[in-house]
Amino acid sequence: MTKWSNQKICKSADKPLENFIVNLPQNTAFHRVDTQNMKCEFGLRGICCKLCANGPCRITQDAPKGVCGATADVIAARNFLRAIAAGSGCYIHIVENAALNLRSIALAKGELRGKKALNSLCVKFGIKGKNDHEKALKVADAVLNDLYKPDYEKMVLTEKMAYAPRVKRWKEIGIMPGGAKAEVFSGVVKTSTNLNSDPVHMLFHTLRLGISTGLYGLTLTNLLNDVVIGEPELRMAPVGLNVIDPDYINIMITGHQHSRFSYIQDRLIQDDVVKKAKAAGAKGFKIVGCTCVGQDMQLRGAHCTKIFNGHAGNNFTSEPILATGAIDAVISEFNCTLPGIEPICDELKIKQICVDAVAKKANAELKEFTYETREKAVNEIIDEVIAAYKARRKVVPMKLLPDHGNKNSLTGVSEVSLKAFLGDSWKPLIDLIAAGKIKGLAGVVGCSNLQCGGHDVLTVELTKQLIAKDILVLTAGCSSGGIENCGLMMPEAAELAGPNLKAVCKQLGIPPVLNFGPCLAIGRLEIVATEVAEALGVDLPQLPLVLSAAQWLEEQALADGAFGLALGLPLHLGIPPFVTGSDLIVKVLTEDMKTLTGGYVFINDDAVETADMFEKIILQKRKDLGLP
Amino acid sequence: MTKWSNQKICKSADKPLENFIVNLPQNTAFHRVDTQNMKCEFGLRGICCKLCANGPCRITQDAPKGVCGATADVIAARNFLRAIAAGSGCYIHIVENAALNLRSIALAKGELRGKKALNSLCVKFGIKGKNDHEKALKVADAVLNDLYKPDYEKMVLTEKMAYAPRVKRWKEIGIMPGGAKAEVFSGVVKTSTNLNSDPVHMLFHTLRLGISTGLYGLTLTNLLNDVVIGEPELRMAPVGLNVIDPDYINIMITGHQHSRFSYIQDRLIQDDVVKKAKAAGAKGFKIVGCTCVGQDMQLRGAHCTKIFNGHAGNNFTSEPILATGAIDAVISEFNCTLPGIEPICDELKIKQICVDAVAKKANAELKEFTYETREKAVNEIIDEVIAAYKARRKVVPMKLLPDHGNKNSLTGVSEVSLKAFLGDSWKPLIDLIAAGKIKGLAGVVGCSNLQCGGHDVLTVELTKQLIAKDILVLTAGCSSGGIENCGLMMPEAAELAGPNLKAVCKQLGIPPVLNFGPCLAIGRLEIVATEVAEALGVDLPQLPLVLSAAQWLEEQALADGAFGLALGLPLHLGIPPFVTGSDLIVKVLTEDMKTLTGGYVFINDDAVETADMFEKIILQKRKDLGLP
Repeated sequence: MTKWSNQKICKSADKPLENFIVNLPQNTAFHRVDTQNMKCEFGLRGICCKLCANGPCRITQDAPKGVCGATADVIAARNFLRAIAAGSGCYIHIVENAALNLRSIALAKGELRGKKALNSLCVKFGIKGKNDHEKALKVADAVLNDLYKPDYEKMVLTEKMAYAPRVKRWKEIGIMPGGAKAEVFSGVVKTSTNLNSDPVHMLFHTLRLGISTGLYGLTLTNLLNDVVIGEPELRMAPVGLNVIDPDYINIMITGHQHSRFSYIQDRLIQDDVVKKAKAAGAKGFKIVGCTCVGQDMQLRGAHCTKIFNGHAGNNFTSEPILATGAIDAVISEFNCTLPGIEPICDELKIKQICVDAVAKKANAELKEFTYETREKAVNEIIDEVIAAYKARRKVVPMKLLPDHGNKNSLTGVSEVSLKAFLGDSWKPLIDLIAAGKIKGLAGVVGCSNLQCGGHDVLTVELTKQLIAKDILVLTAGCSSGGIENCGLMMPEAAELAGPNLKAVCKQLGIPPVLNFGPCLAIGRLEIVATEVAEALGVDLPQLPLVLSAAQWLEEQALADGAFGLALGLPLHLGIPPFVTGSDLIVKVLTEDMKTLTGGYVFINDDAVETADMFEKIILQKRKDLGLP
Repeated sequence: MTKWSNQKICKSADKPLENFIVNLPQNTAFHRVDTQNMKCEFGLRGICCKLCANGPCRITQDAPKGVCGATADVIAARNFLRAIAAGSGCYIHIVENAALNLRSIALAKGELRGKKALNSLCVKFGIKGKNDHEKALKVADAVLNDLYKPDYEKMVLTEKMAYAPRVKRWKEIGIMPGGAKAEVFSGVVKTSTNLNSDPVHMLFHTLRLGISTGLYGLTLTNLLNDVVIGEPELRMAPVGLNVIDPDYINIMITGHQHSRFSYIQDRLIQDDVVKKAKAAGAKGFKIVGCTCVGQDMQLRGAHCTKIFNGHAGNNFTSEPILATGAIDAVISEFNCTLPGIEPICDELKIKQICVDAVAKKANAELKEFTYETREKAVNEIIDEVIAAYKARRKVVPMKLLPDHGNKNSLTGVSEVSLKAFLGDSWKPLIDLIAAGKIKGLAGVVGCSNLQCGGHDVLTVELTKQLIAKDILVLTAGCSSGGIENCGLMMPEAAELAGPNLKAVCKQLGIPPVLNFGPCLAIGRLEIVATEVAEALGVDLPQLPLVLSAAQWLEEQALADGAFGLALGLPLHLGIPPFVTGSDLIVKVLTEDMKTLTGGYVFINDDAVETADMFEKIILQKRKDLGLP
């Protein structure tokens, strides 16, 4: 019996994982859910304010205003805008690093693996260049120039990337974003003590942040990294804890910035490094994917088959992955790197290295490097990881889970690879939708949380319900990690689909759930939706397309959600953001937004009811389009 | 009897004001303190986290970690860094606008009233130019270039402005700031869900933000505005609610950006506008100062005697000022513009106009303008204010307080005007300190809050205690507003000083408390301290100088405090920031900081004890300097 055995453990849709966690001696997020189950109603409803020394203030019937006079609407709106500004900031940090990486490589005339991606960006941006490096430099600079504009100057790439009918609407309601970093900055300033007290004004700001987050933080991060690291290619791959091979020195990666790993992944398979690993007693190095950067590496897995052993799991799978004892080091560069991994790393002598200060863990070594300084830094990292391997392997017991997950999930799905698979045209997909073989599309995206029945419970159940209704599911984010570990991305999962979708899947040899990878790939879904809408000559809100961030977790997810609303899509959440203490915000998000962007939020933590709702929405949109 | 008469009203150091508020029919912050007196211990101690959908999490003995694994230290550090990043962002927004204003005027070859200020900036920055407009343009651009640098590039003006021994120390401990906006941005990113979990790393970031806040947000805002609007000149001026003259159309101003008002203040006294006012039945227009921008206008009052009627009061005086019924419009551009003024404006038909979107109030008209578009916008504003005057004066009763405050407070004190007063040298001041006539200096700065005994209670009492100990008090911020309305900035207040300081004051004809103006003027105090230290050949922490933000209120005050710590000063706060749930943070701020920068925080809400502590610190520093 372990010391946690009497504690209530959070459930998971992934039963083998749940059983593994139940028997762990370590304390994980699954254990801590129970200790944190008494929730503060003020916090949950967003009506607690800690902006000044007269606070904290909390809104009640007897105290309808804070000391300063802020109402529930003002307090909740400030909290909400600040969270979305922070979430947007996270993504903008990522795209800035991706652009800097591309810029450095272009200047150094380094390797660019995604020539098609580069050329399609050049076409999109109207950029010409004498050679690929010149083109890449111009692309990177165009992005960086936009990111650093002040908020009173509109970014210029927005219009080049977004769908024209959307841009038209965004201009009409005044939500075209200024410089992405400045929009974050002014969102934070607005929400400071005794600044903005206009809830509707602040909600409009969240939409601007949604647009800059979506088009820059998400879409462009994908495309810039495609240019450097290579474009996604369809392939079958193993997923789950089975990908861990104890014969290798295993590095688990967490974060969102594939650009930070591209040099590391190449270096780890070079002869001198492999030789070092062998001298230490291992067969070599392997990278074990975790969180979104693992999804991203899986997505581009065709370009790193030698070093990448597969994606082991999502955010809340990170602690159990480490608890196997077979991971020798964690290299992290962003969220979702749980603070909870720190004591596990200490206990199991796992080396922690952080390559981006924004994500510094207390017991991690900070090892930031630029393209220019990468060689020395990465060599040092490698030596430290080898030292950890040597020091720990004889003393730390292993507890593997070799049968967890599966060996043949479809990966590498992108707006390009999927279209190519369909014959370089969306027509086959559109025809299937038009014919009712595919009733509609659902993006099941975003994080995994430990609410809504437990880890991935609502996400996986909703996905099952949707495919059973012949709705094709496209995923991006930690939701992908849960869904794939539960087997829904294997072609065999076609059996769980409704008769029409099942037939389509069998014919094409695909699963009924297509994994676009990390949360960043919400940007890829937007491209798919835009291209399909363009082919049909309709605006996005008219498509039989719905979005669910069923188990959203982070501030970033809220920024993603704002993008979804700006796109005009129906957006399902399993639990509400912390705004329900404001009737005004609830009304704007669930009702008024329809007349602004066409989008709206609905909340439901029941998979069956949500799938029914989605089906109803899709059938109505089909009807409006004149489809059967 | 009014409807609030049975309610407990927050006390004020300003008894006439308190008596006025007790009898008001309106609900004010003074009334709301009582309804918000049940404080959340988790919020107060900084150990509540609302960063993700698994939360809110709260740290208790039985739940020592959040679901993600974040400890009390991590949660409190994230909350603290985010608050300081936001506070810094506020000030950086202000200096950005000040620089943009200077830039526009330089390009348009407009009027520059502070030639000396311009030239001293040029000397400081090493800027040369063929004429003043070229110089001004280069100065503005140098500031803007720094503000917009990425966080991985150090700002270049930092070293030119800061005292060399400080710069040396800051480099040693790695806290020289990168681009000021980017430092805010990355502070926000670091504190997002599952990003940084290293409390000490985050505390170092707060120091970087303190430096950029202090040197750019504070110091440069003052100096850039001095160039445009004119330099402070010593003069006696009325303060308090007596400055309101009901015969005029009265515009109350709130905010922090004098640059946003410089055109308005000039326009309001032009003949055609005065004529319009007279046609409406008034003698003309008057601006009534409130909050820090009122302090700033008072400071530069020599340049706007015709339009500026004086400073009426600080942040929490804004509601009572409006309640007099004699204010016809509020023009706001930043905090501290309490949401509480909105219903009062509605009830008393006071027009609300906001000239900066960051501070938009729900029922204010947003009227942003640039230097280029100012004429049309300000004409429209004037017409709207006149319309409000006409609509309200016959129907809204007045309740004036003509005896409130006083008529002869010393204003216009700056690092330049004070030095000039002393004979263009700090030697007289240094000699007085050396001789023990002035025991030491205390900066009593920052906000006013409604804690610590009530409105300005601790601030005013501490000030009295300090001057009684022959410690000369220098003020900046809303603290100034409280202290001056209580009479301590009249020369007659010398009677309250200790025998030595009293003699000095009488000889020089000055009060024992010198008002540098708005919170921005903390930057002016830093210049005084630096120049004195330079003259003595010592570093700042060696000076017999202490700092108190006794009644700090806002996130901005926390950023100011971080500046104070970076400068190496002892910093008193009446109540702690929301970090006491973290033993680590408390230890770093109160102890470890001494070995890092020389500064440290101490908390005490008792004026006598605090003054004793200050005296002890000052005597020790005198001793270390070899002074009697």
